[in-house]
Amino acid sequence: MLTLYQQQDSGNCYKVRLLLNHLGRPFQAVPVSSLDGSTRRPEFLAKNPIGKVPTIELEDGRFLAESNAILLHFAEGTRLLPADAYERAKAYEWLFFEQYVHEPAIAVRRALSVYPERRATASPERMAQLLDAGNRALAVLERRLEHTDWLAGNAFSVADISLYAYTHMAGEGGYDLGGFPAVGGWLERVAALPSHIPITA
Amino acid sequence: MLTLYQQQDSGNCYKVRLLLNHLGRPFQAVPVSSLDGSTRRPEFLAKNPIGKVPTIELEDGRFLAESNAILLHFAEGTRLLPADAYERAKAYEWLFFEQYVHEPAIAVRRALSVYPERRATASPERMAQLLDAGNRALAVLERRLEHTDWLAGNAFSVADISLYAYTHMAGEGGYDLGGFPAVGGWLERVAALPSHIPITA
Repeated sequence: MLTLYQQQDSGNCYKVRLLLNHLGRPFQAVPVSSLDGSTRRPEFLAKNPIGKVPTIELEDGRFLAESNAILLHFAEGTRLLPADAYERAKAYEWLFFEQYVHEPAIAVRRALSVYPERRATASPERMAQLLDAGNRALAVLERRLEHTDWLAGNAFSVADISLYAYTHMAGEGGYDLGGFPAVGGWLERVAALPSHIPITA
Repeated sequence: MLTLYQQQDSGNCYKVRLLLNHLGRPFQAVPVSSLDGSTRRPEFLAKNPIGKVPTIELEDGRFLAESNAILLHFAEGTRLLPADAYERAKAYEWLFFEQYVHEPAIAVRRALSVYPERRATASPERMAQLLDAGNRALAVLERRLEHTDWLAGNAFSVADISLYAYTHMAGEGGYDLGGFPAVGGWLERVAALPSHIPITA
């Protein structure tokens, strides 16, 4: 069986659980956290030298890291990765946008807002910059979702899974999703899918 | 023919030129730059609403952005993307590492070092943080390349193209590659490939 080394309330880890649930792939979850130092222990660094979660152990004992790389690996050949080459490339585009633009603002501001041990490290200037950068990322999503139901092509895909994770928690980081109605509608569509699970599951 | 909207000395744009050259795909390059404001003009935003380069226009007039998404799109079905599912997933892992960990340190510190209009915006603390983060990213590459010639699987791939771009210019950002001999050997292997081109080409 697949083993997912993960932190339950991390959006990056939630992406992987969400994907595996949509695909009906069973897995066991092993808690590891950057907050308690367990991602820096030798036994975890032997699995992933970068010491980050999510890290997944395949049935053959090999490991994969980077949430969006894990999504692409398991989505290959399934309905969650578009079959059309251009639509697949647009899914890649959203995944890189997520890691370069969206996550470093929205996930980081949320972490600085909800984890007491990190809150003290952020200056007001940094929090203001992250608010601005996150709102620009949300505006990119809004512009796309004003015209279509899903991010890549015409069906739910890994792009939606990846962007959903931290977008649906953006309020915890101080973002006001009320200003992004198309994003709000899309969040509801994702959450209404039959094989959807919440981050607590 | 393909049209690449690009800035010549951007590593992200260089990745795409390098890939297309390795694949023998002809393209025309159109200069656009964040430095002179041309990436924010309406005619460019109509091609890529995020206003970033590289942006590529396909033969059918559709557009793709995000350097690593462009790499994956054109590498599909070629020798530059591993055929083995696990090795391909490791290539994805390196591409996301590049955009999340490597580029935001090494490319950003280089930009802050070489572009006069950006240099004034960086505090000494930020420059020190970026030096430290970039050195950690280089150490990740070093650890991998101590054991293998290429980043994903046993052959040159999009992972090498993506990581080569800003690593080979790391010196411009103040990084000392002398401390990373395996990275140095890999840079030489990449540059010695028959269809390699320098960033100036």
